[in-house]
Amino acid sequence: MKRIKIFVSGGTFDKEYNELTGSLFFRKTHLPEMLKLGRSRLSIKLETLMMIDSLEMKPKDRRLIVKNILSTPENRILISHGTDTMVETAKFIASQVKNKTVILFGAMVPYRFGSSDGFFNLGSALAFAQTLPVGVYIAMNGRYFNWDNCRKNKVKGEFEKIK
Amino acid sequence: MKRIKIFVSGGTFDKEYNELTGSLFFRKTHLPEMLKLGRSRLSIKLETLMMIDSLEMKPKDRRLIVKNILSTPENRILISHGTDTMVETAKFIASQVKNKTVILFGAMVPYRFGSSDGFFNLGSALAFAQTLPVGVYIAMNGRYFNWDNCRKNKVKGEFEKIK
Amino acid sequence: MKRIKIFVSGGTFDKEYNELTGSLFFRKTHLPEMLKLGRSRLSIKLETLMMIDSLEMKPKDRRLIVKNILSTPENRILISHGTDTMVETAKFIASQVKNKTVILFGAMVPYRFGSSDGFFNLGSALAFAQTLPVGVYIAMNGRYFNWDNCRKNKVKGEFEKIK
Amino acid sequence: MKRIKIFVSGGTFDKEYNELTGSLFFRKTHLPEMLKLGRSRLSIKLETLMMIDSLEMKPKDRRLIVKNILSTPENRILISHGTDTMVETAKFIASQVKNKTVILFGAMVPYRFGSSDGFFNLGSALAFAQTLPVGVYIAMNGRYFNWDNCRKNKVKGEFEKIK
Repeated sequence: MKRIKIFVSGGTFDKEYNELTGSLFFRKTHLPEMLKLGRSRLSIKLETLMMIDSLEMKPKDRRLIVKNILSTPENRILISHGTDTMVETAKFIASQVKNKTVILFGAMVPYRFGSSDGFFNLGSALAFAQTLPVGVYIAMNGRYFNWDNCRKNKVKGEFEKIK
Repeated sequence: MKRIKIFVSGGTFDKEYNELTGSLFFRKTHLPEMLKLGRSRLSIKLETLMMIDSLEMKPKDRRLIVKNILSTPENRILISHGTDTMVETAKFIASQVKNKTVILFGAMVPYRFGSSDGFFNLGSALAFAQTLPVGVYIAMNGRYFNWDNCRKNKVKGEFEKIK
Repeated sequence: MKRIKIFVSGGTFDKEYNELTGSLFFRKTHLPEMLKLGRSRLSIKLETLMMIDSLEMKPKDRRLIVKNILSTPENRILISHGTDTMVETAKFIASQVKNKTVILFGAMVPYRFGSSDGFFNLGSALAFAQTLPVGVYIAMNGRYFNWDNCRKNKVKGEFEKIK
Repeated sequence: MKRIKIFVSGGTFDKEYNELTGSLFFRKTHLPEMLKLGRSRLSIKLETLMMIDSLEMKPKDRRLIVKNILSTPENRILISHGTDTMVETAKFIASQVKNKTVILFGAMVPYRFGSSDGFFNLGSALAFAQTLPVGVYIAMNGRYFNWDNCRKNKVKGEFEKIK
């Protein structure tokens, strides 16, 4: 069984409710407890690179992600990411990484909230990481999209093919 | 996008708590609400064949499942199934179905209970159905197994390769 | 069994996550489904007066609440309310309402989020409404407080007696 | 603030799903985590006397409960209990305990399951324990019942007055 690497970057997926301020914030990733809840028996190595809203992601953050993808020994990689700029990050990764299977995924609603799609998306992203050939993909809504044929429909709140 | 067919057979996955009797029972499948919660945008057709505990599954039930796999037009098929005899059903399907991708999946804990792996498993099963070649597979614990190289470890409560 | 009236005013209690904007907002109150989940067999009449954050509550809103308390035939009254100005509203009600049992309650975390105290608080508020004498009270943290001996400790995120 | 004593006896309230056997069982009480989730700031002392289904409760078990009620210094007491024989235990306690406020409570669905009333019932039981006079009561369905005017309607799955 080949090891899968998960890089955490933040996004809606990992947001929590701060009961002292009434606002959403980041503490730490929920991925370890989610993998446990899913009874995952995959070989996974997890690393948090940043915990930010994807609207605040800057070129240096994307460079850091690429640097880590290139330097990690694993060839099958998941990146948890906010949905708003997921396609932009995918595009940048695709321009820099040529020989790995990279899956970006996230959630429309924070995992901590009852109505989250996060746990479902994690399941599908891990499956796609094991089965898709080399390339950069987005896994959302039960589907996978090639990085260059995907956009977020902000009215419907879902991902769709461009053509 | 090719349509995926989901056949429901019952299993722990869909069990509920009967508050009048204090026992577990089946009402109807939770899959439609789970697909909605997962914001699935896949083309899916769902059909309930039976709602039974997999320990009670008889040869005629397995024949009914195979009959439906063969007669449905879709070539990518999910079967929700109890974990106790999932491997046995997979074996029978593999002996009868030669040209479709069939994924059996389930849950260790009913979806209705807080600690369920069902939503995660559904996400991965749907992803495997889209990406694996023709064959019969079991999707549990974030992994996929060929039908002839898989067993349920009843002490650990997880699936593992035989060799 | 005497009927209890619940007036809904909004607050953290009823906030939801807007997955299109990533922010918290109000749709409609969750109280009917909560009463059903609690298997409540109390005689309850529910009315939504407003759906606002308690930091945005203005004198005219508080006058509307008092007007409704005075004009409704029930003598046992619950008011769902944001925690930030709950004490202020309680004080105003106490200055205007002299012959009813009024309980203000809310939640530190929205009911929709896994870590909410809302369902517990509703249970205790309903019990206090049935048993406390005429007066204006705040029910939070499993406790009840007289309106004139209560403050929100914003550092700890809990209610406490003043003296 | 007077301290409240909670005696745990088991019941549906605390049942969990055993994923290795597919049956319901007891591990340990969920009350401490529930009190934390409810942000309870009450002074509470919790003690587990037994973890059994109330249909299996024997005279010696009820004597043990009474013995503990009489010997504990607190005068406000909660007892978590299965619903099937809750009234019977209440009757026995009432025959032996004359000077304390004793509240029996439970749940129709285990706390661990999404559809549980347990968290709501705990909130109301704690409130009743603070406000009701000396006596033995059952707190379910948002209501309280005197021990000698209560029965479980097993068809409806709720508690009701006898007369």
